[in-house]
Amino acid sequence: MTVLDQIADAIGADRILTGTDAAPYGKDWTGAYTSTPLAVLRPTTTAEVSAILKIANAIKTPVVPASGRTGLTGATLAQDALMLSVERLNDIYDINVDGRTATVGAGVILSTLHDAAEAHDLIFPLTLGARGSAMIGGLLSTNAGGSNVVRYGSTRGLCLGLEVVMADGRVMNLMSALHKDNSGLDLRNLVIGAEGTLGIITAAVLKLRPKPQAYATAMVAVASLSDALTLLYKLQDETGNGVEAFEYMPRSYIDKHRQLFPNVARPFEKDYDVNIMIEVAATQAKDAIPTPDGSLPVVSALEETLGAMLEEGTVLDAIIAQNEAQRREIWKRREDAGEVAFFGGVFVNTDVAVPLDKVADFEKMLTPGSRRLTQMQTK
Amino acid sequence: MTVLDQIADAIGADRILTGTDAAPYGKDWTGAYTSTPLAVLRPTTTAEVSAILKIANAIKTPVVPASGRTGLTGATLAQDALMLSVERLNDIYDINVDGRTATVGAGVILSTLHDAAEAHDLIFPLTLGARGSAMIGGLLSTNAGGSNVVRYGSTRGLCLGLEVVMADGRVMNLMSALHKDNSGLDLRNLVIGAEGTLGIITAAVLKLRPKPQAYATAMVAVASLSDALTLLYKLQDETGNGVEAFEYMPRSYIDKHRQLFPNVARPFEKDYDVNIMIEVAATQAKDAIPTPDGSLPVVSALEETLGAMLEEGTVLDAIIAQNEAQRREIWKRREDAGEVAFFGGVFVNTDVAVPLDKVADFEKMLTPGSRRLTQMQTK
Ligand SMILES: Cc1cc2nc3c(=O)[nH]c(=O)nc-3n(C[C@H](O)[C@H](O)[C@H](O)COP(=O)(O)OP(=O)(O)OC[C@H]3O[C@@H](n4cnc5c(N)ncnc54)[C@H](O)[C@@H]3O)c2cc1C
Ligand SMILES: Cc1cc2nc3c(=O)[nH]c(=O)nc-3n(C[C@H](O)[C@H](O)[C@H](O)COP(=O)(O)OP(=O)(O)OC[C@H]3O[C@@H](n4cnc5c(N)ncnc54)[C@H](O)[C@@H]3O)c2cc1C
Repeated sequence: MTVLDQIADAIGADRILTGTDAAPYGKDWTGAYTSTPLAVLRPTTTAEVSAILKIANAIKTPVVPASGRTGLTGATLAQDALMLSVERLNDIYDINVDGRTATVGAGVILSTLHDAAEAHDLIFPLTLGARGSAMIGGLLSTNAGGSNVVRYGSTRGLCLGLEVVMADGRVMNLMSALHKDNSGLDLRNLVIGAEGTLGIITAAVLKLRPKPQAYATAMVAVASLSDALTLLYKLQDETGNGVEAFEYMPRSYIDKHRQLFPNVARPFEKDYDVNIMIEVAATQAKDAIPTPDGSLPVVSALEETLGAMLEEGTVLDAIIAQNEAQRREIWKRREDAGEVAFFGGVFVNTDVAVPLDKVADFEKMLTPGSRRLTQMQTK
Repeated sequence: MTVLDQIADAIGADRILTGTDAAPYGKDWTGAYTSTPLAVLRPTTTAEVSAILKIANAIKTPVVPASGRTGLTGATLAQDALMLSVERLNDIYDINVDGRTATVGAGVILSTLHDAAEAHDLIFPLTLGARGSAMIGGLLSTNAGGSNVVRYGSTRGLCLGLEVVMADGRVMNLMSALHKDNSGLDLRNLVIGAEGTLGIITAAVLKLRPKPQAYATAMVAVASLSDALTLLYKLQDETGNGVEAFEYMPRSYIDKHRQLFPNVARPFEKDYDVNIMIEVAATQAKDAIPTPDGSLPVVSALEETLGAMLEEGTVLDAIIAQNEAQRREIWKRREDAGEVAFFGGVFVNTDVAVPLDKVADFEKMLTPGSRRLTQMQTK
C-alpha cells in the first residue's frame, strides 16, 4: 500500500488533493519558489494530523506543514514531500471576553480572528499586509512581527498556549491560558518560531487586548535614525507606551513604492532619507472624545509634540491624518511592503533585526549599491 | 586526584569553600531545607564555570547552581553535590541608555541593578521582597514574577540575551540585544525557568524601562474576585496600562500579617475578604506634575475612578497613599509575603498560577480548612 493509500484509509480520501488539485499549493505568495508536492493533505482534526504523521514517520516520508503560504522565504516548498495544510483546522473555539483570550485552530486566517475579536470590542493586535491569507499556524511558526510589534511584541508575545503534533504523531497539549506558567520546561516558546521543524501546530490560545478608542496617525521626516529613536522614546513616554506603529521607510522604499503605485502621492513635498510612519492609540476615553472644537485629544497631543520637535529641528516635516481616508493612505504605504520588497532589484533578506541603537550604524554598513533594505521595523 | 583537587588545579584553591566556610551555604532563606555540599565553588569568570563543569561532568559529580538562595522550594539543596555559586560573577558590564538594556553577570543582586539603572533615570522593573539578596541567575532560572508582573511581565519577558554554560562545559552565547530575534530555535526561553537543569546562566542582557515619574498607590476592598478583575481592567484601560501592581490579599493574609507584625495597622476599619493593593505609575510628565492645589494628576485620577466605583458599589472601601511614608506602608504588607507564607500553618505551594477569569473559582475550590493561599498575583 502506498503512503497515500494508508493515509486515505486512516482519514478518508476526501482529505487528499493530488494532480491539478494540488498544483496551486506548489506555488507560494512570492511566486519565486515552486514545487510539486506528492500530495496536499487537508486534515480537519488534530487526530487526523496525528494519524498522518504516524504513517509518514513510519515510512520516513517528509511532511511540510503549510498555513497561508504567504511566507517570503520559500519555506513551504514541498518537493517530493507531502504538504500538510492546516487550512481546515479553522475553528474559533472560544473568545473569552473576561480572560481576554482566544482559542483557535491553526488554520484560522488572521483577518478572521481580527473580526471575531472586534465583535467583542477586543483586538488581536498582530497585523500585517498578508492578514487576509496568513494563518495562525504560520504566524506562530515564523514568529511574525507585523506593524504593531513595537507596542504588543511579536506573535511569540501574544501566545499563551499551543497544541502541537510531533513528528511521530504524539500530541503535545500545551494549551495553557496562563499569563505566567512556570510548570516544566518552556516547550511552547521552543515550538514558536521553529518553522515546523519540531512539530505541527494545530491550535493555540492567544492574548486579546482592548480595542483602542481612537488613533493618531502620521508620516514624519527626520534627519537621521538616531533622531528617529529619540522621537520613538519621546512618544512612548508621553503616551504611556501608546505607540502602536513606528515604521522606518528609507527614501529608496518611498521611491519604489511610487514606481509601483504611481497614483499614490509622495508623503512630503520634498524627498527625505528617513521617513517614519507613526500611529498612536488612545486606550483612555478622555483621549478619544472630541473636544468642543471637534479635535481629538490624542491627535492634538501628537500635533503638539511633533510641532515642538519641528521648531527645535529634530523633526523636518510631518503630516497627520485628519480623517480615516488619510489614515488608510498612510497605512497602505506600509502594507504594500510585501509587493515593494519583491519589485525589481535583488532582494537581500527579510526579518533582519538590529538592536534599537544600532540601526543607524547598520544602514551605514550597507553601501549605496547594495542598499536593498526596503523596510525595517524597530524591534 | 579528587574532584576538588582537579578543580583547585584548574581555577585556584581560593575559589573553593569547604567545612565551616561552606556550612552557611547549606541553608537557604526558608531554613526549612539544609544540606552539606561537598564544597562551595565560587568562580569569577565564565571560563572558570566552564572548567568546573568539564571536570565534574567527566567524573559525574553532581553540581547544583546557586545564586542568592532566596528560593522558597529548597531547590539549591546540594547534599553530596558541589554547589556552584555565581555570586562573584557580579559585574554590571554595561548600561546602554539609548538601547535601554543592561548587560550583567548572573551574580548581580537585584537591588544593585535597580540602583545602577536608576542612576540613568531608567528602571529594571522586576521587584520582589528578596531583592536585596536574589541574583539575576536565580531570578531567570525561576522566571520570578514579583509584584510588577502585571505591567512588565515576569523575568522571561525582561530578558533579551543569555550566556549559559552547559553540563559538559561548552559555553552557549545567546547574548542578543534584539527585541525580536528569529535566528534559530529559541534556546533562551528554554533555559529561562529551567531551574538550572539545562546549564548554568553566567550572564544576561536585560531590558530596562523608563522610570515612572510619579505613583498612585492604594489599598482597595471589593466584594469578590470578579469585581477585582473588573477593577483591574478598568484601571488598565483608563491609565493606558499604567497599573504597575495589582496584588490580591485575602483576609487570611491580612490576619497573618498582623499577627507577625502587630504594630502595622490593618488596612481598613472593617475586615474584608478581598483586599487589593494597587499601584498606578505615571510615565507622562503631565500626570506627574502637581496642579496648583498641590495634588498629583495620577493620584487624582485614581481617586476619581475609585470614588465612582465606591458610589456604584463595586468598591467597598479604599485608601490612597498621600505621601511616600503611606506608600511604603502599603508596600511593606506586600513585601512581607515571604515571611507570611512561612509563618505558622501548613504551606501549600508557591507560584500557583490561574487564568485571570478563574481566580474566583479556584478560591472556591479551596475549602476554608485548607485555605492556605496566602498571596496571589494576577498572572
Ligand atoms: C504582503 C505581505 C506582507 C507581510 N508582512 C509581514 C510582516 O510585516 N511581518 C512578518 O513577520 N511577516 C510578514 N510577511 C510574511 C508572512 O506573512 C509571515 O511570515 C506569516 O507569518 C506567514 O504565515 P502563513 O500562514 O502564510 O505561513 P506559511 O507561509 O504557510 O508558513 C510559514 C512557515 O511556517 C511553517 N508552518 C506553517 N503552518 C504551520 C503549522 N501549523 N505548524 C508548524 N509549522 C507551520 C511552514 O512550514 C513555513 O516554514 C508578509 C507577507 C506578505 C505576502
Ligand atoms: C521575602 C521573599 C519574597 C519573595 N517574593 C517573590 C515574588 O514575589 N515572586 C517570585 O517569583 N519569587 C519570590 N520569592 C522567591 C525567590 O526570591 C525567587 O525565586 C528568586 O528568583 C530566587 O533568586 P535567587 O537568586 O535567590 O535564586 P536561588 O534560590 O539561589 O536559586 C533558585 C533556583 O535557580 C537555580 N539557579 C540559581 N542560579 C542559577 C544560575 N546562575 N544558572 C542556573 N540556575 C541557577 C537554583 O539551582 C535553584 O533551582 C521570594 C523570596 C523571598 C525570600
